[in-house]
Amino acid sequence: MLKSSGSAMYGDASPIAAFATTPGKSALTLIRCSGKSAIELLASVFSPPEKLLQAAGNTVVHGWIVFSGEKTDEVLVSIFRAPKSYTGEDSADISCHGGAAAGKAVMDVLKSAGFRDALPGEFTFRAFVNGKLDFTRSESVMELVSAKTETGRRHAVSRLCGSLETEINEIKKMLIQALSGAEIYLDYSEDEISADAEEAAGMLPNREAALAALARLKKLSASWQIERIYQEGITVVIAGCPNSGKSSLFNALLKEDRSIVTEIPGTTRDWIEAWVSIKGIPVRLIDTAGLRETADSVEEIGVQRSRRLLEEAELVLYLIDGEKGLTGEDVEYAKKSDSNLQRSFQHSQSVFIWNKADISSAPQPFPIDGVTPVSVSAKTGDGLDELYSAIAGAVQINDEPAAASLGTERQKKLVDAACFALDEALALSNNGEPLDLIAPLLREAVNSLGEITGEVSTADILEEMFSRFCVGK
Amino acid sequence: MLKSSGSAMYGDASPIAAFATTPGKSALTLIRCSGKSAIELLASVFSPPEKLLQAAGNTVVHGWIVFSGEKTDEVLVSIFRAPKSYTGEDSADISCHGGAAAGKAVMDVLKSAGFRDALPGEFTFRAFVNGKLDFTRSESVMELVSAKTETGRRHAVSRLCGSLETEINEIKKMLIQALSGAEIYLDYSEDEISADAEEAAGMLPNREAALAALARLKKLSASWQIERIYQEGITVVIAGCPNSGKSSLFNALLKEDRSIVTEIPGTTRDWIEAWVSIKGIPVRLIDTAGLRETADSVEEIGVQRSRRLLEEAELVLYLIDGEKGLTGEDVEYAKKSDSNLQRSFQHSQSVFIWNKADISSAPQPFPIDGVTPVSVSAKTGDGLDELYSAIAGAVQINDEPAAASLGTERQKKLVDAACFALDEALALSNNGEPLDLIAPLLREAVNSLGEITGEVSTADILEEMFSRFCVGK
Repeated sequence: MLKSSGSAMYGDASPIAAFATTPGKSALTLIRCSGKSAIELLASVFSPPEKLLQAAGNTVVHGWIVFSGEKTDEVLVSIFRAPKSYTGEDSADISCHGGAAAGKAVMDVLKSAGFRDALPGEFTFRAFVNGKLDFTRSESVMELVSAKTETGRRHAVSRLCGSLETEINEIKKMLIQALSGAEIYLDYSEDEISADAEEAAGMLPNREAALAALARLKKLSASWQIERIYQEGITVVIAGCPNSGKSSLFNALLKEDRSIVTEIPGTTRDWIEAWVSIKGIPVRLIDTAGLRETADSVEEIGVQRSRRLLEEAELVLYLIDGEKGLTGEDVEYAKKSDSNLQRSFQHSQSVFIWNKADISSAPQPFPIDGVTPVSVSAKTGDGLDELYSAIAGAVQINDEPAAASLGTERQKKLVDAACFALDEALALSNNGEPLDLIAPLLREAVNSLGEITGEVSTADILEEMFSRFCVGK
Repeated sequence: MLKSSGSAMYGDASPIAAFATTPGKSALTLIRCSGKSAIELLASVFSPPEKLLQAAGNTVVHGWIVFSGEKTDEVLVSIFRAPKSYTGEDSADISCHGGAAAGKAVMDVLKSAGFRDALPGEFTFRAFVNGKLDFTRSESVMELVSAKTETGRRHAVSRLCGSLETEINEIKKMLIQALSGAEIYLDYSEDEISADAEEAAGMLPNREAALAALARLKKLSASWQIERIYQEGITVVIAGCPNSGKSSLFNALLKEDRSIVTEIPGTTRDWIEAWVSIKGIPVRLIDTAGLRETADSVEEIGVQRSRRLLEEAELVLYLIDGEKGLTGEDVEYAKKSDSNLQRSFQHSQSVFIWNKADISSAPQPFPIDGVTPVSVSAKTGDGLDELYSAIAGAVQINDEPAAASLGTERQKKLVDAACFALDEALALSNNGEPLDLIAPLLREAVNSLGEITGEVSTADILEEMFSRFCVGK
């Protein structure tokens, strides 16, 4: 009954269908269709068909999906007519009943009518091909769907609004200014070149524009470090001596935080972890309590696991028991942490916490080998704001990033390639090299930027990009 | 920022919002809004607002959800204007980006605009209150969302189409015929009653109608046994001697079945289970392999667990090793199973299977104490169709049920109440009791049926019914 979709490929306009929402025990399930004759095909399994066929774009039609004379599900269909749709093609969003069975049954009927399963990202692929979205906006759609925190969502929306596209296009214009100036000179024959022009031939005519472009590219490149953290998050491990209050801090961070985005479902691991949002940063928070404190023969395994977790962590929250004061082990850890060469946990930074500040009878926090702990009471919640700032500071996120920022590794690589070419062009210019050596480098930089927005693209790039999307997008 | 929804209650028309799809890493998230000024409120956080305000019913508007001048998400909004909407009120379906963050951010904005969280089933509750759906159709919406198999879905759709509502209303009409006839007699004063009428006063004037109604009610009542199985499924345990092929059969049933609707995620249980659809019946299939075969000290626990699983099961598939032939244990089990009094597993029926039929050198299957095994090869798949029929037969599902069938326990209780009253009315009539004793019983039956469709209802019934729905429905 179902047509094979084995030969499916990006780039055709054949009618496709996919679930746009996660199947589950929900009120509704949304199925998206798009492509050539999508509305006519849908009408062939819709009752009453003429209502769909006659429907204007951007209208909603109520009816039934039917197959072999039997009603499959009562649905609402939103009709979109080319080019006014997400994909730029004739499209329909079918709102079926939720649950496991209804959506599946409707999808089976759609396939029998001639729709094939959409490939990952194929709807957005078609939107790009039909000029509805540039690459940076297409990618931001995926970022938005994957956003773990409110901040991540906000940044993705900014790129969806075109902030990155605009920035890239502005930088490209500056480079073209520099390039087109150079190419004017190259167009002159040697005979025609005046003494002035000859003097200038060794340098970029619009060096200022190239320098300004480079500065903006470097800023963009730097933005990725922060954006990547917002997207992927960081692993933070809570460590410290037994009874220093690790679990209390873990719970306090979980409780304080109102924007937990996801939790790791119950596993058989012997440590506890949860995702929390700290200053908009997705943080995988790990409580090692219980690892060291296990008895006898298990002890060694616990210590080893604890060490491995600490090595994986990007940040360690090291707790000192403010009631008892510093232990020898605390001082030892701080010393190791202070010197990069002697650090036992090479990849992780530490934030030191003077816990139980509310009942601390020990001397006030002081620099331990150069480190000043943050004074916190996990019990009362005092000092947690300072701790959040210290965590954000440790991963070098202090402020809102610049208006335009990068959203993917792909964009970062292309910006760096543009920087590299531009750097070289400027160096050649400084050395008085001829313009016919400099101009190709500038053109290379412009091409890299064109690849970011998709102005310059190949079939391979397209497929590679969109196949990483989820199906239905 | 968010308004409290502590005082929320069914029955007001205040603007409500809820996720209509399961949050997850999907392309889209659907949020439903409905209620007084729903479109105006939504417009207050929508850009451009005038497009929403001016939108006709059943049209789709593209724009942005905005809050404090900041864009929250790019959305499509389907506008529905009262009374042409699911709830009968002004409503909007907002299609936001998928993922954890976008839908949550939009929902936060909606709440700040004055929407409150919808209570479970509140959209359908309002649809009922506004006369869009009767009770049987409302309930079928929930059945549809919960349907585990294609058959379950089909039956729910039939009720959504009104098959049960029509049947109930027809039966009710028949009772009213009987009743109204009776009441005409009662309206006469004694003086006016003729000799004929006096003679007739001891029996129902339209006894035929009452008898026909009773027959249809009994048929409806009986339909619930089958419907309940389609909705809730049955637990089937595979049992038998070691190496009789339990795991092979388990895998064969999983592999053959193309409509597995859900699987139990990896658990720490030491038996394996999965949901499969056998002839449209959701079957929780349990493989006890490994339970008995564990060694030494664990053995006793395994046997106990096996026994408990067999007791819980509604059906046991008992495997006989066709290669080795009958064992003493097999005969023992068959004997126990044959006699209800002596059965060790009181609540479960058994289907006996002669497995490894493809390599069976032992004598052909024969009745074992009255039981004829089904000949199957789990390896080649031969005989599985016969096994499916045997399973369906054992739970007394042989054919498609009648056109009208019951979908909920609530309906079943009310149909039984109507049957009970009608039975009594007919008995009184047979005994020549006066009509003023019979008529109230008929009225009681009619009222019970009215409660099924919701014609007769109280606030308590309404709340009890709809609070069992999922949110967003």
